[in-house]
Amino acid sequence: MKSLEEKTLKTEQIFTGKVISLQVDDVELPNGKTSKREIVKHPGAVAVIPVTADHKIIMVEQYRKALERTIVEIPAGKLEAGEKPEICAARELEEETGYECANLEWLISFYTSPGFADEIIHVYKATGLTKKANPAAADEDEFVNLMEITLEEAIQLVKEQKIFDAKTAYAVQHLQLQEVLEK
Amino acid sequence: MKSLEEKTLKTEQIFTGKVISLQVDDVELPNGKTSKREIVKHPGAVAVIPVTADHKIIMVEQYRKALERTIVEIPAGKLEAGEKPEICAARELEEETGYECANLEWLISFYTSPGFADEIIHVYKATGLTKKANPAAADEDEFVNLMEITLEEAIQLVKEQKIFDAKTAYAVQHLQLQEVLEK
Repeated sequence: MKSLEEKTLKTEQIFTGKVISLQVDDVELPNGKTSKREIVKHPGAVAVIPVTADHKIIMVEQYRKALERTIVEIPAGKLEAGEKPEICAARELEEETGYECANLEWLISFYTSPGFADEIIHVYKATGLTKKANPAAADEDEFVNLMEITLEEAIQLVKEQKIFDAKTAYAVQHLQLQEVLEK
Repeated sequence: MKSLEEKTLKTEQIFTGKVISLQVDDVELPNGKTSKREIVKHPGAVAVIPVTADHKIIMVEQYRKALERTIVEIPAGKLEAGEKPEICAARELEEETGYECANLEWLISFYTSPGFADEIIHVYKATGLTKKANPAAADEDEFVNLMEITLEEAIQLVKEQKIFDAKTAYAVQHLQLQEVLEK
């Protein structure tokens, strides 16, 4: 197998924001030529597919400025510095839905866009849900509407492109596969 | 349901690169307060899970500078301006693997990171593969190693976190679900 590594010749820091930062690396390619790589750095995130005792999935409707529209997703949020993914998952679940969970099952961790970003997202399934009397508040710039839908409805919404982000599509398909395998 | 829309008050263009651009929007939140949104614009992409006549999946091993490592993924690439996703899918398949395909089945289109980027990726399954005598060359800054693995091996690699990007994890799980449903 040929080596594919790209050596960093220079890194130019373009932007450092509150969520992401951007750098452009000059790299030496495997054939000795040079190129530029535009790279977004992200702290990482978690997502949680919460399943209630009566088999409903809790989704959040949220405005996504990057898409200039509202979309329906599973609850998710960014990791804080040094925060363990499962702690973050429980926190985001509580902040966005008002539920706490007895069980948190890790499903997968994946890079969302390895071509230009280092964001990794850890995906969990939450069960044993109970509504908290005084749940932690969401971030002050975060506004969501809650929805409870069946797995069949979720599968249909994915099919109709009404649910269409990577983490939610993966998690819904995962529950579908689990259900089929258990039959 | 309360309105979740965020009105744009100002857009500051930070960076325009060859792949992505970055802007920071000042927004008015649903409660009347203001916040900033860091937004990456991306042209969109396609990914193809190619399945050979003897049920092998063709994967590409590729160095991802954003991750500073080599990862194993299904073939994928950026949309060119005005390019239809299925044309792009056939092109990327040929460039990265040397195969052309008789059938291209659309599986899903999803946003990879709606929290900060508008990248959408269209995922296809390619079958009816034939090796081209003189395939189109890959981009001049793109280097890949090819691998052919079974679905069972792919599922295992996802489980072991050796395959761990969103599009590949989704596509492998999709084939697994298809296989289970057909049994």
